Amino acid sequence: MAQAKNLYIVVIGCGRLGSFLANRLSSEGHSVVVIDVNSNAFDALTVDQFSGFRVEGDATELSILKQAKTDKADVVIGATHDENVNIMVAQITKNRFNVPKVLVRILDPNKESLCDAIGVECVCPTRITAEKMITALNGNQTV
Amino acid sequence: MAQAKNLYIVVIGCGRLGSFLANRLSSEGHSVVVIDVNSNAFDALTVDQFSGFRVEGDATELSILKQAKTDKADVVIGATHDENVNIMVAQITKNRFNVPKVLVRILDPNKESLCDAIGVECVCPTRITAEKMITALNGNQTV
Repeated sequence: MAQAKNLYIVVIGCGRLGSFLANRLSSEGHSVVVIDVNSNAFDALTVDQFSGFRVEGDATELSILKQAKTDKADVVIGATHDENVNIMVAQITKNRFNVPKVLVRILDPNKESLCDAIGVECVCPTRITAEKMITALNGNQTV
Repeated sequence: MAQAKNLYIVVIGCGRLGSFLANRLSSEGHSVVVIDVNSNAFDALTVDQFSGFRVEGDATELSILKQAKTDKADVVIGATHDENVNIMVAQITKNRFNVPKVLVRILDPNKESLCDAIGVECVCPTRITAEKMITALNGNQTV
């Protein structure tokens, strides 16, 4: 049977989304490094799920990305609360570290076209939450 | 052909999610009222999409919910940045105004079980964004 590859994943930002992803991906057997400027953010990584590494620092600095061995990464996920930081780090990791897969969270749906233009794959919680709510609401429709 | 019903929808919070939903639902022909404590938030409602009403005030106050004619609502959507406000208003609108469909945005995935317990339908952007990213990432897997 096909065996899923163990990936080397760098998660930038250890807030709700970053910690959720880091815990899940680590528990699934991937090698995960999480970067956050605030060491307290790492408290959201759970002992029973997360067995990766923590790097404290600003991911917009090359030295921090190097410390996280971003040049070895299969995947980088930009999950900070600042979408501009996510997009900026995505461009650096794609262009300078040749990371094959870069995903970012953006909050403003209007930034999706910018991401498309620069070849960065993005997920917009605002849009997918709205779409899920509209689907739930239409499911309630009578005709 | 079946015609979708025109719904009376109260959207609480006019941030990115609330304004996105209000614009979309209004442009689809629903009657939409948006409540926000900050009148500047209504700037996100676009003239070409939104033809509903704006109510400035705190949706945790009964007088504001009454002003929005919440007792007539088919749907209430809690879309403020404070999930506790969303859940609180959801309970009020369900129990006091008998609104048949109440949807809330929660940010902490751990609050989903609380919502289930009190019968409030919720959407958690953190979880669905993470799941969408994991799907995108697995799509990149080689075996």
